[in-house]
Amino acid sequence: MTLRAALRSKSAFSGLLSQLSSCSSHGRVCVSPVLVAQRRNNSTSPKIKVDFDQSTGVAVMHMQSPPVNSLSLDFLTELCIGVEKLEMDKSCRGLIITSSQPKVFSAGLDILEMYGKSPESCGEFWKAVQEMWLKLYSSNMVTIAAINGSSPAGGCLMSMTCDYRIMADNPRYSIGLNETQLGIVAPFWFKDTMLNTVGHRTTELALELGLLYNPSEALKIGLVDKLVPEDQVLTTAAQTMTKWLAIPEHARQITKSMMRKPTIDKLTSNREADIQNFVKFITKDSIQKSLRMYLEMLKKRKA
Amino acid sequence: MTLRAALRSKSAFSGLLSQLSSCSSHGRVCVSPVLVAQRRNNSTSPKIKVDFDQSTGVAVMHMQSPPVNSLSLDFLTELCIGVEKLEMDKSCRGLIITSSQPKVFSAGLDILEMYGKSPESCGEFWKAVQEMWLKLYSSNMVTIAAINGSSPAGGCLMSMTCDYRIMADNPRYSIGLNETQLGIVAPFWFKDTMLNTVGHRTTELALELGLLYNPSEALKIGLVDKLVPEDQVLTTAAQTMTKWLAIPEHARQITKSMMRKPTIDKLTSNREADIQNFVKFITKDSIQKSLRMYLEMLKKRKA
Amino acid sequence: MTLRAALRSKSAFSGLLSQLSSCSSHGRVCVSPVLVAQRRNNSTSPKIKVDFDQSTGVAVMHMQSPPVNSLSLDFLTELCIGVEKLEMDKSCRGLIITSSQPKVFSAGLDILEMYGKSPESCGEFWKAVQEMWLKLYSSNMVTIAAINGSSPAGGCLMSMTCDYRIMADNPRYSIGLNETQLGIVAPFWFKDTMLNTVGHRTTELALELGLLYNPSEALKIGLVDKLVPEDQVLTTAAQTMTKWLAIPEHARQITKSMMRKPTIDKLTSNREADIQNFVKFITKDSIQKSLRMYLEMLKKRKA
Repeated sequence: MTLRAALRSKSAFSGLLSQLSSCSSHGRVCVSPVLVAQRRNNSTSPKIKVDFDQSTGVAVMHMQSPPVNSLSLDFLTELCIGVEKLEMDKSCRGLIITSSQPKVFSAGLDILEMYGKSPESCGEFWKAVQEMWLKLYSSNMVTIAAINGSSPAGGCLMSMTCDYRIMADNPRYSIGLNETQLGIVAPFWFKDTMLNTVGHRTTELALELGLLYNPSEALKIGLVDKLVPEDQVLTTAAQTMTKWLAIPEHARQITKSMMRKPTIDKLTSNREADIQNFVKFITKDSIQKSLRMYLEMLKKRKA
Repeated sequence: MTLRAALRSKSAFSGLLSQLSSCSSHGRVCVSPVLVAQRRNNSTSPKIKVDFDQSTGVAVMHMQSPPVNSLSLDFLTELCIGVEKLEMDKSCRGLIITSSQPKVFSAGLDILEMYGKSPESCGEFWKAVQEMWLKLYSSNMVTIAAINGSSPAGGCLMSMTCDYRIMADNPRYSIGLNETQLGIVAPFWFKDTMLNTVGHRTTELALELGLLYNPSEALKIGLVDKLVPEDQVLTTAAQTMTKWLAIPEHARQITKSMMRKPTIDKLTSNREADIQNFVKFITKDSIQKSLRMYLEMLKKRKA
Repeated sequence: MTLRAALRSKSAFSGLLSQLSSCSSHGRVCVSPVLVAQRRNNSTSPKIKVDFDQSTGVAVMHMQSPPVNSLSLDFLTELCIGVEKLEMDKSCRGLIITSSQPKVFSAGLDILEMYGKSPESCGEFWKAVQEMWLKLYSSNMVTIAAINGSSPAGGCLMSMTCDYRIMADNPRYSIGLNETQLGIVAPFWFKDTMLNTVGHRTTELALELGLLYNPSEALKIGLVDKLVPEDQVLTTAAQTMTKWLAIPEHARQITKSMMRKPTIDKLTSNREADIQNFVKFITKDSIQKSLRMYLEMLKKRKA
């Protein structure tokens, strides 16, 4: 319990040790367990802030869940509700996703949602991860990821759901599906999303080795579309959005659906089996042991 | 009627406004409505000229339908008959497709075949577009596109059906499936053909934004295979053809079929549904309105 | 008989004439028919040598079947038994495949197993080719190809089954699926393996033209992953293996299976039909004639 509480604030499913380590060395993860526990129970502190500009039709979604925007159940629930509201608002045509946390876009799935939890909790969590992916990958809005920090694992997945990815050109940041490095397996729809982005062979290498790419490498393999200086990520996203919104909307939406529907259908028609598969895998003794070792390593680094 | 007649000669389904504008500024589209109407009814003026060299086994198909080789029903019918004749002639082993019109390979589908037409006419037209694609994409001949001008939309599709694409290295030319820019959607088999050529992510970007690429960009993404100075496009095509014809023919044909059959089967087994889908879409009020606005814009530019 | 015996030692299904020619000019193929016949019947002369290092968990498989490691039935049988033994040995986690023959990794399928043979023999041979591919492409071990020489046709296939490919940076070496050049067709699972490695369009060009790539070209299209000086191929393979073995094993294996299972399933569920298809094709008079002409050309070059 002490361990879990102590780690709660930085237990992202990331494997991005250098990133987390660098965060901690700058003191940004020094949130006391008590504060974190309060935040968990306190739904008045939003993890997502949405700025919607009626004049442009563009919403900017700021992820602001300290320290590293871990994708917890609460975070995902809030994010999905936010996306759904915008999706139903006909005046909102574009969505830019970015982070308010320094140095990190999102560190990915919250490992504490998977460690020492009941099968039911794990299943509920996984359903929320699916929901996030389904909502974003099939969005009728133009979606742009303004990746202003590291984006491992689930953070990379979230970026890949977008129509366009602009990343801060900071060599200390990294992006990739690095689950394998933690002894976990990226599920088939993570894999499919990456395959649609960078092709089969690059995906094979990336997933087997759990590779994290720096921005230049990510641009080279097509994992992101554009690099800009860190302070220009959001303005470039806004300019790019203007270009995309000039495209006839109905035709663009049908085209997007045509490109993505087969991949989306694979999950929607196998959603329950995918949840059971995940729960069965994550609750294995060997996997729980891997997660514990990982959490202990994080704790040591923090100490 | 006046509008339609006036635009008949340049109403290609292209969206290549700069291209068409540049054509018109050079006076090449100043064909009077009367003349055009006559040409339509005059089947003695062939839109396609085929030069077949018995000694090499190579046919060169010149598209010569002023001003921009729009793919009208008549044009497509003539082209399909021409390809079929060559396909059945055992002595013809290679086909080079090129344009006799200055600055344009083909401006794509003739928009007047889709604007203000009956569902029956639209369906008949679409069937001819399918037929062109099926004949070229499954041809047993070696097919090489000698792209000596701009090649938007249907012109790009035609190029992509070939085994090899050589483009004139003129930065004023462009190529791409830009349907979305016109508010129209490239159907799944256009998409599949592009996907087989440049991969999933590039296709997604290209189709969602309706991108047209200049020759250098097209080479970089693999949309064309080689750039040469404009006056060398045909000779390079002939030299390339010689190389291809040196490959054992039966093995090459089986290999080509193995690569393309799944894509071809998807259309042949859904052909009628695809026609109905197109007719239902194109006859919508909103789409007809888009087309009318586009035609009016062309008219203004011409004026 | 004299022809077949004379050619037995170099009748690889390669089409790599320059390679074979260069071999013969250096005298390495001057094995007398008698000696070759003896080797065939002498199972005490192993075609594969396996060095397994218990301390690292890595096995190095040296192909040592003079002159060019042709994939004969005997060779394939020995290779499959070797791989299966390692696969079942839990202490063996990595496999490096390399050649003990100078200038060649493997020249591919042994053409004499397909020329002038009964349908039964051809079928037995093809089953062994399938078995080699299935065993290597689905291996739970980390597999690295240390390509220290030319690797046409079946040699290229074997390389592509590995997780990683390191090739000697010698411009005289080449790699590719060049079957079409011989009038033969690479079957669908050769095609699928290449497609998973270099994508659709590159595969289409490579297979239709039967292209062989020099190391720089192979690196550029992604057919190999790394080039190093010839004397560093094995040490680089060992270093790379260390990196791969540091990845959590279970997660890596599941990920590999997820990437490759659909491709493997296509063959396992069509194995008998694929054999019959091959036998029917290869025993055709026209194909046998092509093979004979090819063998005679090899004989002339040798003379």
